[in-house]
Amino acid sequence: MNPSHLLGPVLVLGSGLLGASIGLGLRAHGIDVIVSDPSPSAQAVAVDIGAGRAFDVSENLAPELVVVAAPPDVSATVVAAALTTYPGAVVVDIASVKVAIATELAALLGPDSELLQRYVGTHPMAGRERSGPVAARGELFNSMPWVLCASEVSSKHAVKVAHSLAIDLNAVVFRFSPEEHDSAVALVSHLPQVMSSLVASRLAETPAHALSLAGNGLRDVTRIAASDPALWVQILGANAPRLLEIVKGVRTDLDRLINTLSAPTAPGARLDLAQLMAEGNAGQSRIPGKHGGPAQQYTWLTVLVDDKPGQIAKLLTEIGAIGVNVEDLRLDHSAGLQVGMVELSVLPSKRVSLVEDLTDRGWKVIL
Amino acid sequence: MNPSHLLGPVLVLGSGLLGASIGLGLRAHGIDVIVSDPSPSAQAVAVDIGAGRAFDVSENLAPELVVVAAPPDVSATVVAAALTTYPGAVVVDIASVKVAIATELAALLGPDSELLQRYVGTHPMAGRERSGPVAARGELFNSMPWVLCASEVSSKHAVKVAHSLAIDLNAVVFRFSPEEHDSAVALVSHLPQVMSSLVASRLAETPAHALSLAGNGLRDVTRIAASDPALWVQILGANAPRLLEIVKGVRTDLDRLINTLSAPTAPGARLDLAQLMAEGNAGQSRIPGKHGGPAQQYTWLTVLVDDKPGQIAKLLTEIGAIGVNVEDLRLDHSAGLQVGMVELSVLPSKRVSLVEDLTDRGWKVIL
Repeated sequence: MNPSHLLGPVLVLGSGLLGASIGLGLRAHGIDVIVSDPSPSAQAVAVDIGAGRAFDVSENLAPELVVVAAPPDVSATVVAAALTTYPGAVVVDIASVKVAIATELAALLGPDSELLQRYVGTHPMAGRERSGPVAARGELFNSMPWVLCASEVSSKHAVKVAHSLAIDLNAVVFRFSPEEHDSAVALVSHLPQVMSSLVASRLAETPAHALSLAGNGLRDVTRIAASDPALWVQILGANAPRLLEIVKGVRTDLDRLINTLSAPTAPGARLDLAQLMAEGNAGQSRIPGKHGGPAQQYTWLTVLVDDKPGQIAKLLTEIGAIGVNVEDLRLDHSAGLQVGMVELSVLPSKRVSLVEDLTDRGWKVIL
Repeated sequence: MNPSHLLGPVLVLGSGLLGASIGLGLRAHGIDVIVSDPSPSAQAVAVDIGAGRAFDVSENLAPELVVVAAPPDVSATVVAAALTTYPGAVVVDIASVKVAIATELAALLGPDSELLQRYVGTHPMAGRERSGPVAARGELFNSMPWVLCASEVSSKHAVKVAHSLAIDLNAVVFRFSPEEHDSAVALVSHLPQVMSSLVASRLAETPAHALSLAGNGLRDVTRIAASDPALWVQILGANAPRLLEIVKGVRTDLDRLINTLSAPTAPGARLDLAQLMAEGNAGQSRIPGKHGGPAQQYTWLTVLVDDKPGQIAKLLTEIGAIGVNVEDLRLDHSAGLQVGMVELSVLPSKRVSLVEDLTDRGWKVIL
């Protein structure tokens, strides 16, 4: 059992995927965790998997921390109630929008309420494509970003306790203002979500044979279009002003594109298309590399393998034996034949020797 | 040396990635290949890597097949010249748009020209993210789609020879009309490309700290925004009418979204957002699974691994030993810590026993 920064007890209100995972992670430190959920069955599952003990109304509970793990829509109400009910507790929420909740909270408690000193809005960026307490794991937040959005009135103690929560769950802490946070996620999370949905919705009524030509480009762009509408309606609604601003910029660019495509042989049309593509190049190159480091260029190479158990493992075992770290990996399967292509990205300095070594070992490498 | 369907000689006009790869693949069957390129250095590289012998103007060449592997912009002109110069040859091009080339060709030769009987437009869907003859490999087309777009006047012999080319290169043959092809690629290839570029271009002027929260969703949606502007200007310009129609549909949906986000608490706003997300769900679920089969639901599970050489290989070796085939695999690296998550998709029927077996072997599995 590792030492923890939190002392406990910690009350977790809401035992969905995130609430139950927080409980499990804190229990692994031996912290006293109490879980509560409006759904008795969700609460029972969370208790059953070891995320904490069940909330008991007759207990005179004095938690160090209350974690509000409720849907975004009701988070402010639950935070306000917790601040009132537990006068010694720091209260955090974990919803993926922050300004709307802060605004609603100020309306509920009064903007000058001293209760707000004990509140810190937070956003752990993990687990969005799964749901329910049965999917919960204490490791869910391991090395994922956890954004702390202290307000101007959040006390130092409240920020320290919120920080301890993220650290105890092995998350990587970022500090943003609520406004900065909501602008950032509008861009890096909510924009790609709606654009992916817009692309995918074009596929709804197309002939199936057209889709037989679909490749990895389409699959990548539309993967997150499979996300849960119920949750995203709350997220998009709560961050509407910031997303709106960005989406209006997209419409301006889309109108440029439509004008160009309407007269593709007009003077300047080609330059317009090149400009649109070049702006995409420039933006894409700014996305940071893994581990939060600067964007780094890796070299891709492709190896052909039979599509049967063990082939990819055999390849990676040999690459491991050669001593090269695979930075990223994609499987590229194609229509009709049982052959796969494994795309590997490695540091450029490793490429030449890796290709030689793999070829020597009998692999078919495509650069 | 495998037996081939083509007899040769085959003249390849253009020795970029695709032309040189075609040459290499046909040479592996022992077919006599001649390569020609307006750039002497590109032609020399192609000859040097074994893609064929150099074109010699003094030779009285009578090719069975001429493959026009030129940029989309000049393909029609080169096809017309080849049909005129080699009266016994079948001529194919491999550009990624087909109607514009057919139209230009009819204008160049006359719409009733008998020469057009020997022409078949084709589109091998491979290699778009790499370029140049040094990247060429004969296996480039292995199990990738190769679309044959015969016109109404294409002779049976011409179609048979074009088919033989695709088969000799181990591609999977599809038959589309030029119009069907261009509509299909507008949807599955050109639309995701422009939408990816539109998302990525929003990142060009954003504060760097906002991008530090970028996750796999943004990375997936913007991956193809790194594509080459010069090539895509030609592709998008040549397929403008079909892409325009689809992009106008996107603008209609985008305007709906903008209206909803402008008044997110108005009656019906939440229903509009839910509808947009649900349409995305529906479209995304129609994308076929690998090997051209129907879309199939796989179960995802996540395994935590140390981010050092050999760990992923060790994991996959053990999964291979357990006897489970990994359908897809993603690496999910996170900011700050040297731990990676390997996301694996497997058939639902294999999941329970795989999780048990991996846990028994000491892996940390997150469902």
